[in-house]
Amino acid sequence: MSQSLLSALRAPAREAPESGIVEIVNAARGRGDLIPLWVGEGDLPTPRFICEAAETALKDGETFYTYQRGLPELRQALADYHARVYERPFDAERFFITGSGMQSIQIAVQMIAGSGDEVLVPTPSWPNIAAAVGISGGTAVSVPMSFGNMGWELDIDRLAAAVTPRTRAIFLNSPSNPTGWVADHSTLAAILSLARKHGLWIISDEVYGRFYYGEGGRAPAFHDIAEDGDRILYVNTFSKNWAMTGWRIGWISAPAELGQVIENMVQYSTSGVAAFMQRAAIAALSPQGDAFLVEQIARASAGRRIVRDAISRLPGARFAEPEGAFYLFFGLQDHPDSRELAMALVRETGLGLAPGSAFGPAGEGFLRLCYARREDHLIEGTRRLAEWLSH
Amino acid sequence: MSQSLLSALRAPAREAPESGIVEIVNAARGRGDLIPLWVGEGDLPTPRFICEAAETALKDGETFYTYQRGLPELRQALADYHARVYERPFDAERFFITGSGMQSIQIAVQMIAGSGDEVLVPTPSWPNIAAAVGISGGTAVSVPMSFGNMGWELDIDRLAAAVTPRTRAIFLNSPSNPTGWVADHSTLAAILSLARKHGLWIISDEVYGRFYYGEGGRAPAFHDIAEDGDRILYVNTFSKNWAMTGWRIGWISAPAELGQVIENMVQYSTSGVAAFMQRAAIAALSPQGDAFLVEQIARASAGRRIVRDAISRLPGARFAEPEGAFYLFFGLQDHPDSRELAMALVRETGLGLAPGSAFGPAGEGFLRLCYARREDHLIEGTRRLAEWLSH
Repeated sequence: MSQSLLSALRAPAREAPESGIVEIVNAARGRGDLIPLWVGEGDLPTPRFICEAAETALKDGETFYTYQRGLPELRQALADYHARVYERPFDAERFFITGSGMQSIQIAVQMIAGSGDEVLVPTPSWPNIAAAVGISGGTAVSVPMSFGNMGWELDIDRLAAAVTPRTRAIFLNSPSNPTGWVADHSTLAAILSLARKHGLWIISDEVYGRFYYGEGGRAPAFHDIAEDGDRILYVNTFSKNWAMTGWRIGWISAPAELGQVIENMVQYSTSGVAAFMQRAAIAALSPQGDAFLVEQIARASAGRRIVRDAISRLPGARFAEPEGAFYLFFGLQDHPDSRELAMALVRETGLGLAPGSAFGPAGEGFLRLCYARREDHLIEGTRRLAEWLSH
Repeated sequence: MSQSLLSALRAPAREAPESGIVEIVNAARGRGDLIPLWVGEGDLPTPRFICEAAETALKDGETFYTYQRGLPELRQALADYHARVYERPFDAERFFITGSGMQSIQIAVQMIAGSGDEVLVPTPSWPNIAAAVGISGGTAVSVPMSFGNMGWELDIDRLAAAVTPRTRAIFLNSPSNPTGWVADHSTLAAILSLARKHGLWIISDEVYGRFYYGEGGRAPAFHDIAEDGDRILYVNTFSKNWAMTGWRIGWISAPAELGQVIENMVQYSTSGVAAFMQRAAIAALSPQGDAFLVEQIARASAGRRIVRDAISRLPGARFAEPEGAFYLFFGLQDHPDSRELAMALVRETGLGLAPGSAFGPAGEGFLRLCYARREDHLIEGTRRLAEWLSH
């Protein structure tokens, strides 16, 4: 009976993959001494000033339907935030509030790619993008990046060679989850040129754009080089910058003339984001929020040094120093099966890491460690790993 | 340039319809004496005991990622609620928390119908269902109900005749938005029999199931007649019952063996609902919430009497007395164009009604009035309508 129910589902839904991290998490349930560095989430709760904005709005009775595109004040606050970060003006009309960065991706994909369409995705990559393309009926085409002495590299010729008549978009996540790779301006320009040449869309996932360890306080971005009329949809979230992972609020930045289509996509999926949640997002974009974000970035930077130094001392460890995001993606000689390694580590030491295989075949042989976490956990976690390897 | 951006979008996204209500709403912006009876929303804010549960959870730091299927406590609370309402046991494993009733529909549709597939929808119907099918790449096939001396009627033979080899599902919304029609047990049995015969899914939208003006405190439901293995996905929301329209929390009730697929659909769309919001939903399902819901139903019932009596006195008015939901769907002789009529009414009297044409061609000639609103607004709104008609 159960087989018959499942087999009666639409294939793209039935075949959507399970998360490759959850089974590792499940293997550790109830363990008291766990050090969980597997998920892309810090360990600080949302700051009080952000929560209080939501609580005040609830007390004020902001519990009714609201704007599908987002509160005008929040859209303006996003425009102002972007102006501060990218040092040029932004129109509030190009910002649209969504129910998470993930929903921003889902909406962007649905706008562009359906049955028979292809989206190019440099890998290793966060697995949810390929899954979202699949559920929309399309195909995510992996373009493997190479790992060598220069770190992770995206071969633009390889990307160009993957374009077919069915290609509708290039998905780019820079800074990258899981590798920490950051596209420089010449890489961004090459991708934009390729997209222009073939009439492709770019879905630019800049969720980690502020977690950048080079100069300038933020990673290079398409905003620096794009022109009006370029086919770029930016997807983003409040989750990482402001410790709001559990809230599920994101945004899309897109040409304002797509506004009615994006409004419709919101209307026919979740019909908007609670107004009281949006009040919290406005608080996150205040000067107090800017200051909190600076602290978060400094904390991640300190965590990065700790794990980089600790992992580099391990025999047979290899990794590219992350230029952005907040993950160390590293391999260990003699441990090519990342799922087996992650399972053994959590069972035998209580250290929770994400297997590289969860990020596509190009991630096999690697483990992902989130270092936006408390220092004592990073020290103890890497110590356990070293001890386990020494036995 | 803007044309070129729009034309570069995927057709099902580009062609998703605008809401037929919004243009009427826009025509009234800034009007001080507005009586807004157009939207499917009451006028009471969410009760404090529900808001307080969310505020407490925020203070407790429940701001991290949580279960994709929903908090176990909330899933159990839904099972208990269903057991109270349907008077038989329910397994918590069949309940899945979503980011609105709309998202429940989107997920149900994505599980069943994509490119080339058809979903049968009795109409007039809430337009979002057809739009969700369209965005998924499928086609919503309208099966018009007839309006006559017996009220609205669904012709089962007509429904059966609409089944083709491409048909994957029947969408049923009972009690119906906008008509107030309620399927009786023999109609439900006939639909279930048709679905079984052709291997179709049923998407049962029971959002208004508690707003029922017959005996028993709730409308007849597939839960009364379905057996294990039947292909039924129930979609529902906290919005209407507990004055939580702005929150965006819903649920799906489905065979537990579909759990992993539904979890994946949540993961790859919004990745779950904020834990602090789910705490509010748990409060809504408490005895205090039950009592609030009883008050809400009584209030709607009183509103129904007011508008029914007032509209029945209008010259040339025709409507079926609503058996459920909280809308009066009525036509006025000599006013066949509902959009034109709704626009004139809001401009000339400040009374906001939804045009029947927004609910598909079968709704043309009707207006939808939401009576889950304060008594003085219902009295004054219908008075303005009578006065306008008398000129």
